[in-house]
Amino acid sequence: METPQLPAEPMLWSGWGDPAKAAELPSPVRRLLADLLGVQAPALPAATFGEVRLPAPALSPLVLSALSSAVGGEHVRLDDDARIRHTRGKSTPDLLRMRAGDGSDAPDAVVLPGSHAEVAEALRVCAEHRVAVVPFGGGTSVVGGLIAARKGFAGVVALDTARLNRLVSIDTESMVAELEPGLRAPQAEQLLAAHGFTLGHFPQSFEYATLGGYAAARSSGQASAGYGRFDDMVVGMTVATPQGTLDLGRAPKSAAGPDLRQVILGSEGAFGVITSLRLRVRPAPAVRVYEGWRFATFSAGAAALRRVAQEGPAPTVLRLSDETETMVGLARPEELGALASEPGCQVIAGYEGTAADVAYRRERTAATLSEMGGVPLGSEPGEKWAHGRYSAPYLRDSLLAAGATVETLETACFWSGVPRLYEAVRQALTASLGSPLVMCHVSHVYATGASLYFTVVTAQSDDPVGQWESAKRAVNDAIGLAGGTISHHHGVGRDHLQAYALEIGDLGVSMLRGVKERLDPAGILNPGVLIP
Amino acid sequence: METPQLPAEPMLWSGWGDPAKAAELPSPVRRLLADLLGVQAPALPAATFGEVRLPAPALSPLVLSALSSAVGGEHVRLDDDARIRHTRGKSTPDLLRMRAGDGSDAPDAVVLPGSHAEVAEALRVCAEHRVAVVPFGGGTSVVGGLIAARKGFAGVVALDTARLNRLVSIDTESMVAELEPGLRAPQAEQLLAAHGFTLGHFPQSFEYATLGGYAAARSSGQASAGYGRFDDMVVGMTVATPQGTLDLGRAPKSAAGPDLRQVILGSEGAFGVITSLRLRVRPAPAVRVYEGWRFATFSAGAAALRRVAQEGPAPTVLRLSDETETMVGLARPEELGALASEPGCQVIAGYEGTAADVAYRRERTAATLSEMGGVPLGSEPGEKWAHGRYSAPYLRDSLLAAGATVETLETACFWSGVPRLYEAVRQALTASLGSPLVMCHVSHVYATGASLYFTVVTAQSDDPVGQWESAKRAVNDAIGLAGGTISHHHGVGRDHLQAYALEIGDLGVSMLRGVKERLDPAGILNPGVLIP
Repeated sequence: METPQLPAEPMLWSGWGDPAKAAELPSPVRRLLADLLGVQAPALPAATFGEVRLPAPALSPLVLSALSSAVGGEHVRLDDDARIRHTRGKSTPDLLRMRAGDGSDAPDAVVLPGSHAEVAEALRVCAEHRVAVVPFGGGTSVVGGLIAARKGFAGVVALDTARLNRLVSIDTESMVAELEPGLRAPQAEQLLAAHGFTLGHFPQSFEYATLGGYAAARSSGQASAGYGRFDDMVVGMTVATPQGTLDLGRAPKSAAGPDLRQVILGSEGAFGVITSLRLRVRPAPAVRVYEGWRFATFSAGAAALRRVAQEGPAPTVLRLSDETETMVGLARPEELGALASEPGCQVIAGYEGTAADVAYRRERTAATLSEMGGVPLGSEPGEKWAHGRYSAPYLRDSLLAAGATVETLETACFWSGVPRLYEAVRQALTASLGSPLVMCHVSHVYATGASLYFTVVTAQSDDPVGQWESAKRAVNDAIGLAGGTISHHHGVGRDHLQAYALEIGDLGVSMLRGVKERLDPAGILNPGVLIP
Repeated sequence: METPQLPAEPMLWSGWGDPAKAAELPSPVRRLLADLLGVQAPALPAATFGEVRLPAPALSPLVLSALSSAVGGEHVRLDDDARIRHTRGKSTPDLLRMRAGDGSDAPDAVVLPGSHAEVAEALRVCAEHRVAVVPFGGGTSVVGGLIAARKGFAGVVALDTARLNRLVSIDTESMVAELEPGLRAPQAEQLLAAHGFTLGHFPQSFEYATLGGYAAARSSGQASAGYGRFDDMVVGMTVATPQGTLDLGRAPKSAAGPDLRQVILGSEGAFGVITSLRLRVRPAPAVRVYEGWRFATFSAGAAALRRVAQEGPAPTVLRLSDETETMVGLARPEELGALASEPGCQVIAGYEGTAADVAYRRERTAATLSEMGGVPLGSEPGEKWAHGRYSAPYLRDSLLAAGATVETLETACFWSGVPRLYEAVRQALTASLGSPLVMCHVSHVYATGASLYFTVVTAQSDDPVGQWESAKRAVNDAIGLAGGTISHHHGVGRDHLQAYALEIGDLGVSMLRGVKERLDPAGILNPGVLIP
């Protein structure tokens, strides 16, 4: 058992990340926002922490006493600070509501169990008293995954996994580490690095996300071309449910029935609380190289990425920005607004591994990208991308403060459907929002398909939450009609609930309900999320 | 829509494959069997086709009429030929029972729907009349996956997918082919080859297995190191259930909830009938090279395979025979019994792909194998292995006729558990069977673990089925205690039912039942298989 040296610093309650890292908007961006989108400063300043309106706590002394017995009195928190910091996630509507002082979705209490047994006991207590439970990791959901439906429940608790933060063991022969779900990603990486290993999972939420959240929401990181998605890394897990414990995964792969690990992965806390993960680890790379390429058009770039993904060998990172994203420079946040000097679309190709392996994959990939019309831009764009890879969420806070709504959304499909899906999302956003700035990149590639990640910026209306919700509905419909999946790596939450139900059909929903009835018959786990 | 040119020839009813390919036992093998194992010719000759005892057909005229309406009268078969050929699968106990003339598990009828709609209608009829349905593809199950529990049902039909045998479409951009489940693997390969593609899935059952069976039982082929398991190739599927249709898979990967494809994969016909598969295809390889290596010991060979699997690049085929299997020469059936001239353990490493890709992977793999103590044996052992790769099941028939019981079983675990699992299975077989010949190979490798495939040969007792069932129970227990999965690629069927329940625990079984209730509330689909 090893515990992290890195502290788990709290995140800005009304926005993203470390308040000290707040990004100032470059003046060209301010001009662009005003000129291009008509953005004006909001009429009201954002609410202060003290101004947040919280509902009266609903839990009875009996329930609180039982929870205290389950996890220890000092680990049942009722204070405003804990409640506010466990209110919703980090989607743009979540932030807009907090900036407006709306704490109406706050949990009644925050419970911090310290072991599998304590999680199990807390779930037992909540099931007995019909208290809804929101499993809470890093709190970085951007799809409304942390907002429980209160109706019919005696109250809502956030079950925070922060105390489940140990490296349990490393099997260096099998290259499998057992880690607890409340470890933040940088903590996990630091613990593994001391043994020479890495997970290789670096999503934009890396600084605050937890391993449990990665698993429960099927995260995919920026280096997924090389290291794979997080669900690919999970070889085993222990799960506490109101009906008992699941212990899954005796081998990397098995023909012993359906893969039940794949039922818990993506279950977003609706089936149980993951209390341990057995994860594939890799040797920490000796070499890291990130490079830029330019293609004339998005479709030319996509064709090149497709060939690389289908023919291999795969780079570690492979991303393609469309014309607008390239022009605005979202892939190099430090220069945002300093419009790109050359037209076209930027690709970032990165390689991590041993020197020989990096050299081979780099040479082969470069040959393919060149053959497909790519122009090499050297390492500078790659290093800038790597330096700014976690910066975009900070920028969002500044844009929200300036009166712009900025939000991201993502989807995936098979390669032949990419052009249609790309156009469908752009058209839906444009039709709903007037003349927003819509940027896109291919963020993850597979042999058979790819994901599209959109960033949209628009001037805030008088009702920015309603404005965005309307656009979001339009996009969800468009993705469904174009045959894309409603999420490649953000998850379902509440924001994708209806679209998800259409995607898997009535019978697919029925399958989920069948599992839910068996694991959580009282329906206390994250009600309103994932399962319609 | 394209239909296969290759016919789907019937298989030997009481054994494996094409009767014309029956393997004669080399005389050294006969001597070995007598001297080493005390094998004697069976007292009774095998039953003839006409001697098979079939139960009286149980289905009422009403049910038969409804089934005829569903699929067409000529596609409801009641004749002895159809019933005998759909009795059980191809495990050794299955064959021993057929050789004894025991047709007691024969279905009452064989139904051959020609479309998704006909499958759905047949299921509706069977649910209405409480008729058990055994989805039937190639009939190659070796785990009792084709034996329905009759109790409580009005009868049993085998739902044969043979008429669902079309290549529906190929999306060459996405490298995805839509294929129907009743295509036999060689038919599918021929259809794809005409377009320059391959699935790359070559299990020992290749000549007779169907795509639907591959998917429903999570098959893994001999080239899985390069092409992956069959479940990895499935990007989408359509499934008919008694409660309606599932249509799953809008993208290679998704974060939209649990991966429901992974619930159908491995469901062995207990949740529905797969009526269409969208599969990843690859360019047909320009070059194929198979080579042999020798290692001093099984553990030295396993360490080498582990390093190759963890460091990459992966060969297409990678297998390691233990000392006994190497000595007996099971990896080169043509020379079986001509004992290996050198001690040690044989590895087969194969490479398929473009010339450049094969050259690179071969050089890198060879370097690692050499560093780990491997001695290159050149292409001759590799070519012999490739030539005989589908031969072992033919040999089994000859061994059964000679009075030897031969059976295979397999498991998988993480690398650190391999030595313990290997010993546990060998000890269980030896303790149960006296002094059997036990051979093993590492048949599939992953970064985090591997599968072990055992072949056991013993003299038949007076009750060869009971003799094997007792040994099988002992091995199942041993695998469970050693922490292995009860099957890496054969499936659960009836033979692994109890071990599987222990592996996934009561709550895992409850999850399966929750899904089953939703998709098949009458419980007609393959009762007694997969779900305890």
